[in-house]
Amino acid sequence: MIAAGLREIVFHANRALAETGLVIGTFGNVSQADRTIGVFVIKPSGIPYDTLTPAHMVPVSLETGEVVDSNLRPSSDTATHLELYRAFGCGGIVHTHSEYATAFAQARVAVRCMGTTHADYFRADVPVTRPLTKEEVGNEYEKNTGLVIVETLRREGLSCNEMAAVLVANHGPFTWGPDAASAIEHAEVLEYLARLEWRMRALAAEAARPDSFLIDKHYLRKHGPDAYYGQK
Amino acid sequence: MIAAGLREIVFHANRALAETGLVIGTFGNVSQADRTIGVFVIKPSGIPYDTLTPAHMVPVSLETGEVVDSNLRPSSDTATHLELYRAFGCGGIVHTHSEYATAFAQARVAVRCMGTTHADYFRADVPVTRPLTKEEVGNEYEKNTGLVIVETLRREGLSCNEMAAVLVANHGPFTWGPDAASAIEHAEVLEYLARLEWRMRALAAEAARPDSFLIDKHYLRKHGPDAYYGQK
Amino acid sequence: MIAAGLREIVFHANRALAETGLVIGTFGNVSQADRTIGVFVIKPSGIPYDTLTPAHMVPVSLETGEVVDSNLRPSSDTATHLELYRAFGCGGIVHTHSEYATAFAQARVAVRCMGTTHADYFRADVPVTRPLTKEEVGNEYEKNTGLVIVETLRREGLSCNEMAAVLVANHGPFTWGPDAASAIEHAEVLEYLARLEWRMRALAAEAARPDSFLIDKHYLRKHGPDAYYGQK
Amino acid sequence: MIAAGLREIVFHANRALAETGLVIGTFGNVSQADRTIGVFVIKPSGIPYDTLTPAHMVPVSLETGEVVDSNLRPSSDTATHLELYRAFGCGGIVHTHSEYATAFAQARVAVRCMGTTHADYFRADVPVTRPLTKEEVGNEYEKNTGLVIVETLRREGLSCNEMAAVLVANHGPFTWGPDAASAIEHAEVLEYLARLEWRMRALAAEAARPDSFLIDKHYLRKHGPDAYYGQK
Repeated sequence: MIAAGLREIVFHANRALAETGLVIGTFGNVSQADRTIGVFVIKPSGIPYDTLTPAHMVPVSLETGEVVDSNLRPSSDTATHLELYRAFGCGGIVHTHSEYATAFAQARVAVRCMGTTHADYFRADVPVTRPLTKEEVGNEYEKNTGLVIVETLRREGLSCNEMAAVLVANHGPFTWGPDAASAIEHAEVLEYLARLEWRMRALAAEAARPDSFLIDKHYLRKHGPDAYYGQK
Repeated sequence: MIAAGLREIVFHANRALAETGLVIGTFGNVSQADRTIGVFVIKPSGIPYDTLTPAHMVPVSLETGEVVDSNLRPSSDTATHLELYRAFGCGGIVHTHSEYATAFAQARVAVRCMGTTHADYFRADVPVTRPLTKEEVGNEYEKNTGLVIVETLRREGLSCNEMAAVLVANHGPFTWGPDAASAIEHAEVLEYLARLEWRMRALAAEAARPDSFLIDKHYLRKHGPDAYYGQK
Repeated sequence: MIAAGLREIVFHANRALAETGLVIGTFGNVSQADRTIGVFVIKPSGIPYDTLTPAHMVPVSLETGEVVDSNLRPSSDTATHLELYRAFGCGGIVHTHSEYATAFAQARVAVRCMGTTHADYFRADVPVTRPLTKEEVGNEYEKNTGLVIVETLRREGLSCNEMAAVLVANHGPFTWGPDAASAIEHAEVLEYLARLEWRMRALAAEAARPDSFLIDKHYLRKHGPDAYYGQK
Repeated sequence: MIAAGLREIVFHANRALAETGLVIGTFGNVSQADRTIGVFVIKPSGIPYDTLTPAHMVPVSLETGEVVDSNLRPSSDTATHLELYRAFGCGGIVHTHSEYATAFAQARVAVRCMGTTHADYFRADVPVTRPLTKEEVGNEYEKNTGLVIVETLRREGLSCNEMAAVLVANHGPFTWGPDAASAIEHAEVLEYLARLEWRMRALAAEAARPDSFLIDKHYLRKHGPDAYYGQK
């Protein structure tokens, strides 16, 4: 069986995602890629979390998008993951319907960068995609969901490192990172930031934005060449 | 003792419902029907969850509405369940006072279909019944609660498969499905969707509805002849 | 040691209250009375919940208000409990600073009766006291807190059975019942109803009230001579 | 190894803080000082809570601000703690990004004293700092964060005993006390009070403030020479 180690990792990442409380029922999935063997592994479609085993995880070719070495049908969101792996240099992807981030996605409202906690992780507002057209929904819907995420980062002028999350309009959040664990961390932090912004808007919807030098200070003390957060 | 297996199922379903956090105290009940023997089984009235045993579960005749083979008084909502079993082809029914769904019921506001998570389960807004009249409350109140739920689906032009939930005005939600487990799943998803809609309204009460082709896409990829969600 | 059994009960009731999540730190207390021996027992002041034992519980005379058979100082709210035991026929009293009920108390807004869940327990809106005067705060503050609760029920024309809860303005809720366990149940239900009403107001602040015949139906199917909820 | 006992205390305090739910990921830190040996001990920067041991805790000189007897880099907020230890007589400091307090900090809105629960702990509104200038962020940012907290108490005319918490604009709360445990208690109570005030504002944003004699009564029955809360 190819990619047995990766199947283990993705299996445990799906368990870990379920334990975050960000998913309800089977709404949500994590994948991780191994570019040396040209595949990513994702969970199968519609199997309850408590009956999953590592052997259920489904490898998919990064080149062809076809299932490799499995008889199971992969998550219905597989074609979305494939487009993100192709466009970004990322190694892990998460999709959830976490409550606050999904509420912003349904309202088509960005999660604004209003404080240092946001800037520690994301360098700008977490953006929302445009709605898909009738043609994009009718034909290759899941692939087009991936393409509109890529288009959104381009529209905002952000790299996939500066912004590791997008809200798909009327759907929910996708996040990514170097591996599945960091994509899960980004999904958790995004949900926390969405809760924070939601509560802040109720207090003072028109509150002044923080100064850009404060945002840069926090982003750059954790990321980039002069970072001084954590151990050397 | 007739229906011993069904009593076990309904006992465990009531435990499972209690563990969802959707009920507080003894507010809530689950039942399941076995049409081959013409009964449904429901929990007894006002006995705390932690002292219930399978033998406490009360069978009720689908034909006569009378208790069969038990000396206990069934849930005070039994006549509501009976009307739903008669009108719908369903096999399980749940009633809760879950917080967000009940808040919508008290406000007499429908839980709108604003995103793909809703459309994965319910094909339209989850509707609210009209208030009962003085006569309907004064005489056969619980039976009339069932009838007004049936009337509400008819008013909306929805089948009980397309819409497995109704909010009873100033009271709370009822959900159903092929068996007790799926009725519980619908109660949980409804509460999640009510939370989502409640948070979304605070962000953008007048947000644009999603396009109908997006709703149909999600409903039909999980339900109906061309569904491609889950394993074959 | 007198009242050893009652000390055990009150000790466990204080533990049970801590487990409800309705109290934070040492904010909250439960007492229970035994009118045959003319005392009520309450927890001591400012001792953390995790170091309490039954022997720490403090008996207080219903006649004189003095501590009996203990060297510990009783809860600073003891004089409030005493006034409620004297005015009402109740056997147990709870005070918490539970989040939603306290928010209503601080806003001086009643928890309205907007649905059947409320009517199952409380026959009317849960009222708020008037603020205490400077004299009432300056002299015998805790006793005056009890007196203003009694005054509030009188103002509303409600018996202490019809309404087992009052919100003290800018302070928090007091609840009561035949014993400590039922007073705790009322505190939990009140907090649930406050959450429900808070969420409902955000959806439709001006929503129509339910018909009075619906409220009476639910109150009377659980209370009074024609009740048919629970087992006979 | 100097300060081994203090390292144990600070290690356990960081664990205790993580268990309060007030921190997410590595966002948050506790320190405690021992003025007899002239150091405070703080956790290291960016090490996940579940891999910390007492030996990881980093002692810092109160006089020079330099690390003593450790090769690890201390929390990036160390210079903020140092300024607070120098200005206040406190023995413990906590920083969190707890949800509600941080929402107030981002909105630059004080947590008002609207009831007795607040007055039991804090004698006035919990204030928000002014935003830092570009110069203050660009040079010695963390030290300037400490200085603006000290400036805020002075602006409000409050001692560090009367007000053991400040919200840093667009950042989050800092709290303090005689030791780490009391600083954690203040962080928990602040978050509770922020939740309470947030919910109250939604009910009645313009609600009347409680009378000052009620606030003084509660503050002084727990603090100062005539306190009568707790055991003697």
